[in-house]
Amino acid sequence: MTRVSSIPKATCLRLSLYLRHLDHAADQGSETTSSAQLAAALGATAAQVRKDLSLFGQFGRPGVGYQVEELRQAIRRILGVDRRWPVAVVGVGNLGRALARYREFAERNFDVVALFDIDPAKVGSRIGGVVVSSMEDMDKVVAECGVRLALLAVPAHAAQKAAEALVRAGVTGILNFAPAVVRLPARVVLYPADVSVLLEQLSCQVSAEPARPRSRRGKGGSALTARGFEVE
Amino acid sequence: MTRVSSIPKATCLRLSLYLRHLDHAADQGSETTSSAQLAAALGATAAQVRKDLSLFGQFGRPGVGYQVEELRQAIRRILGVDRRWPVAVVGVGNLGRALARYREFAERNFDVVALFDIDPAKVGSRIGGVVVSSMEDMDKVVAECGVRLALLAVPAHAAQKAAEALVRAGVTGILNFAPAVVRLPARVVLYPADVSVLLEQLSCQVSAEPARPRSRRGKGGSALTARGFEVE
Repeated sequence: MTRVSSIPKATCLRLSLYLRHLDHAADQGSETTSSAQLAAALGATAAQVRKDLSLFGQFGRPGVGYQVEELRQAIRRILGVDRRWPVAVVGVGNLGRALARYREFAERNFDVVALFDIDPAKVGSRIGGVVVSSMEDMDKVVAECGVRLALLAVPAHAAQKAAEALVRAGVTGILNFAPAVVRLPARVVLYPADVSVLLEQLSCQVSAEPARPRSRRGKGGSALTARGFEVE
Repeated sequence: MTRVSSIPKATCLRLSLYLRHLDHAADQGSETTSSAQLAAALGATAAQVRKDLSLFGQFGRPGVGYQVEELRQAIRRILGVDRRWPVAVVGVGNLGRALARYREFAERNFDVVALFDIDPAKVGSRIGGVVVSSMEDMDKVVAECGVRLALLAVPAHAAQKAAEALVRAGVTGILNFAPAVVRLPARVVLYPADVSVLLEQLSCQVSAEPARPRSRRGKGGSALTARGFEVE
């Protein structure tokens, strides 16, 4: 299998979603799947699926399809989730606390092992079994825990400074839940995850839709046609 | 100003981030800004900024730049956030409760006005002043509140059914926080917002990085150069 040096972001997202489908297929006891089935689960085309997977090597055989377990392990390797990732959460307000407690992360091989907050009243408390550390101890804790990925859940005004502290401590991938533009060195991978920014993407797309008749609220569920995440 | 019928997703995202920069500039009392400043805040190029904004009409004057307040109002209009949006949250577990309580939404004109859960023990309780309704009452509550956007925060196995119920009730835009592939009619705008999917995007990109010397943990903050969200 070839490890490419830089995987396009849209491909990474589709790989995550293929993996969800393959996990589900494995749970159901399926041993093989096809590019058509993978495509249908995402609303992509079979050609797109074959193109994505061909980037990483030779998978699938004509007339047989893909071996679920083989493809699953290959995608886990490509996504880097064939190993466990220690993760830090910075800012333990409502959102940060929910992120710290979210069990699904561990099932996907992401372990929240470090929590940080600027509030002395929170430092030393435990959330989901992890002690909240002070921002001053970030370098030490990040190094000790081998953290390279972080969830930034601080208020907007604190985002830039907290992100820079993470980068200085050795973190190279950040999900930014703060509703703020954060500027970091190009070597750091930074994804926006602020829900209000994501909500604006919805309102932007819904606003731009052509007007439709009000009868859209019909109760018949049969009009639902296959379509998945809109991935460019 | 021209209302385009379909705005590219990557443009929508940049517009949200321009708006964050303009909000910040307005807070600081700035009356004008430039494409170079907008570009620097996002790590985009000034040419990209000018191209994005030219899609929607004539903004800015040579030698003067953009009027912060004028551009801010225009982008709010384009994003559809010049009015308030009633929003529903489906599933009030840890994440759903945090989303229901998140004050930032209201500041960005998104009001959580409806909550739904399948658990009878939760139905009738209040979170952030909003009563939790049963899934059976979804049609009625969504219609009464005029909800068109929803945050789907149910477990993976419940995601498809809950999303279909939202669509039947009249919702046309959904952020999917469940770690599941959801298939909906093409007329519904659906964005993945599951944090474990987003984390896999980080691990994918960080894994694909070329190896770097370990000295990257140097303490000097001065090496931080301007770069914002990586937006295609």
